[in-house]
Amino acid sequence: MTDTAELVTALRVPPGPLTLSTIPTDATPGFGGDKAAGKIALLGLGEELADLQERLFAEGTSGGTRSLLLVLQGMDTSGKGGTLRSTVGLMDPQGVRITSFKAPTEEELEHDFLWRITKALPEPGYVGVFDRSHYEDVLIARVRELAPVEEIERRYQAINDFEADLVGKGTRIVKCMLHISADEQKERLLARLGDPTKHWKYNPGDVDERERWRAYQDAYEVAIERTNTEVAPWHVIPADRKWYRNLAIGELLLVALQAMDLQWPAADFDVATEKKRLADEKPVG
Amino acid sequence: MTDTAELVTALRVPPGPLTLSTIPTDATPGFGGDKAAGKIALLGLGEELADLQERLFAEGTSGGTRSLLLVLQGMDTSGKGGTLRSTVGLMDPQGVRITSFKAPTEEELEHDFLWRITKALPEPGYVGVFDRSHYEDVLIARVRELAPVEEIERRYQAINDFEADLVGKGTRIVKCMLHISADEQKERLLARLGDPTKHWKYNPGDVDERERWRAYQDAYEVAIERTNTEVAPWHVIPADRKWYRNLAIGELLLVALQAMDLQWPAADFDVATEKKRLADEKPVG
Repeated sequence: MTDTAELVTALRVPPGPLTLSTIPTDATPGFGGDKAAGKIALLGLGEELADLQERLFAEGTSGGTRSLLLVLQGMDTSGKGGTLRSTVGLMDPQGVRITSFKAPTEEELEHDFLWRITKALPEPGYVGVFDRSHYEDVLIARVRELAPVEEIERRYQAINDFEADLVGKGTRIVKCMLHISADEQKERLLARLGDPTKHWKYNPGDVDERERWRAYQDAYEVAIERTNTEVAPWHVIPADRKWYRNLAIGELLLVALQAMDLQWPAADFDVATEKKRLADEKPVG
Repeated sequence: MTDTAELVTALRVPPGPLTLSTIPTDATPGFGGDKAAGKIALLGLGEELADLQERLFAEGTSGGTRSLLLVLQGMDTSGKGGTLRSTVGLMDPQGVRITSFKAPTEEELEHDFLWRITKALPEPGYVGVFDRSHYEDVLIARVRELAPVEEIERRYQAINDFEADLVGKGTRIVKCMLHISADEQKERLLARLGDPTKHWKYNPGDVDERERWRAYQDAYEVAIERTNTEVAPWHVIPADRKWYRNLAIGELLLVALQAMDLQWPAADFDVATEKKRLADEKPVG
C-alpha cells in the first residue's frame, strides 16, 4: 500500500523557493490506505528498521564512523513528541540518542549557536534524534529577533557548512519539517485544554505565538530554501494526520538506512580458535 | 501470575554479607508462569509504565525535580542490552536517557570517578538508565587493580554519599545486578560465535575475563554489601532466563514509579480563559 519511491519524492523539497501554503497538510502522498492500514504499515517497518539499526550500531562498535541524524522541526503541537514515541520508538533504545533542545541556557548563549548542537551529535553507530535543533536559531530567532539580522543571515551558510562537514565524516542527515495547518493546531490546543492529563503540555504562550503563524511559516520557507542542500535535503511531512506523519518518517529513516548498505562486521578474531578456547576452558565459577 | 510483593522481596538484597553463589541464576521468584506467560506479563506492564512515566515527565516540565535512575550492572552477556530493548523500550523514548559507560577516556580519568556519572544523571522528569555505571570503578577497577586499594576503599563510601545526595534531591534509584551463571555465559558466548550476525558482540578478551569469574563475583559481593543502602538498595536479578530478567526489571521500575505517587500537574493557567482566547482568535495562517 506504500509506494516508497513516490513517498520519498513527494516529501523531499525540490531546490528553489518553497511555498508551504501550497503543500497540503492533510495529504498522504505515497500511501493508498487509511489510518488503520497506516498504523499496520508503520509496525511493518519495525523489523527492518531494527535490523538495519543494529547493523549500524554493530559497525560503530567495530571501528565504523557512520551515524544517522534525524532532525525534527515543526510548530507547537505538530507532533515531534508523538514521532519520538511511535516511530523512533520502533528502534532499539540502546542505539538511539534523543536530544530535546529548549531555549538556550546562559552558558549556551555565550557560545556560537552550533556549540550545543555539536555536543549532542550522535556517536558512531548511533541514531541521533534532534527534537528541535540548530534550526531554531534561524526560526524563532528570526521571528522574535533574538539575534541581529546579519547574524541570522550568517547562520544559514554556517549550517550548510556544518552539515556538509558532518556528512563528510559519515553522518547521514534526515531533516523533517512537520507541516500542520493553523486550524489543526487550534484543534490540538483545544484538545489539550479539554483533557486535564494534557494540561501540562499547554502553554498560554502558544496562543500568542499563533499571532506570528505567518511569520513562522515565512521563516521556515526561508530556512528550508537556504539549507536544502544536496547532502542534507529537507522533507516537508504533511502532519495533520498523525498516523501518516509517523509512517512517513519511518519510511524516510528506513530509506536512509538502506542507502547506507550496512553489513554485519566481519569477525576480527578466528572463530574456530575461540570456540576451541571455550571448549577447552578449565572450570569457571 | 505475578506476585509483585514476593518478587520485590525476593530480589531486594537484605543488609549484610552477600553470597552470590547461594542465589539461583535460573529462578523466577514472584512469577508462577512460563516463558510465554512471562513475555505477556511484561507487555502487560507497558501501559501503566508508560502512563506513570508520562506523569513523571509532565512533572518535570512543570517545575518538579524528581527523576528515576535505573542502574544496570552484570557480567558480559548478562543481558544489559536486552533489558534496554525489551523493558526500557516499553517506555516513551522521549522521557528516557540511556548512557552506556565504556572504559573511561583520558579526560575522564583525569577527574574523580563520579565526574562522568554526574554529567549523565537524568534531568527532572526523566528516566535515566545506566548501562554499566560508577560501579565499574569498584568492580573491574578492583579485579584488574586499576586503582590503589585505598582508593577503591574510599569509593564505596563516596558512592553512598553521592547516591544519598541524589535521592535527597529527588532521584529514585533502582540498582540491578543481572546475575547469570558461568555456564550460561559460556552458552551465550558460544551462541555469539555460532552466528555471524553476532560476531560483533564477541570479544576474545571476554574469555580471558572468565578466568577472573570468581574475582568478579567477589567484587560484586563486596560492592553490593558496601553500597546496599536503605535509600538506594540493590537487587540481584536471576538472569539466566532472559524473559524473567526483563519482567523482573519491568516490575521493579513500575513499583518505583508507583511509590512516587505521580499526579498530573495542575494547570497554571485558567482553562476557561484559554478556551475563550482560542475561540475568539482572529483568523490565523
